[in-house]
Amino acid sequence: MNLAFKALSDGTRRDILRLLQSGDLNAGEIASHFEMSKPSISHHLNVLKQAKLVQAERQGQEIIYSLNATVMQEFLSAFLELFGVNDDEI
Amino acid sequence: MNLAFKALSDGTRRDILRLLQSGDLNAGEIASHFEMSKPSISHHLNVLKQAKLVQAERQGQEIIYSLNATVMQEFLSAFLELFGVNDDEI
Repeated sequence: MNLAFKALSDGTRRDILRLLQSGDLNAGEIASHFEMSKPSISHHLNVLKQAKLVQAERQGQEIIYSLNATVMQEFLSAFLELFGVNDDEI
Repeated sequence: MNLAFKALSDGTRRDILRLLQSGDLNAGEIASHFEMSKPSISHHLNVLKQAKLVQAERQGQEIIYSLNATVMQEFLSAFLELFGVNDDEI
């Protein structure tokens, strides 16, 4: 949970998560949405991967990034509990 | 928002927020719930204050800590948007 919060403490990484809500993308497609070098985007993707918020899957020559729905759901539940919101209310 | 996520990336600070859900407390009362030095708790309270998740109010000789409900609500909304959950669903 610490890793997930740390991963979310950066605006670019939050933007990447928003972007992946619309569908899975490879690193180049993700990078094209940001005015930032590919190595920087690659670093952010690695932080998100380590926090398990995002998963990477090789498809042929490409690595496709997608949201890790299970971990995000668990994290959301833990977050809501922290804020005193009952999970069932969602 | 970065500060709030950083503040939440520590288990003790999350425990302090849970504790304050039950009511306002002074630093000594908060510290009594943790096996940790008062200066350490004081540091964690300062981080939470800087992130505006918690507010401190002097009452006579004491400083009373409470959740900053407005900021926490704003942060919760931003967080839910990030996870693609509609705010109205809560």
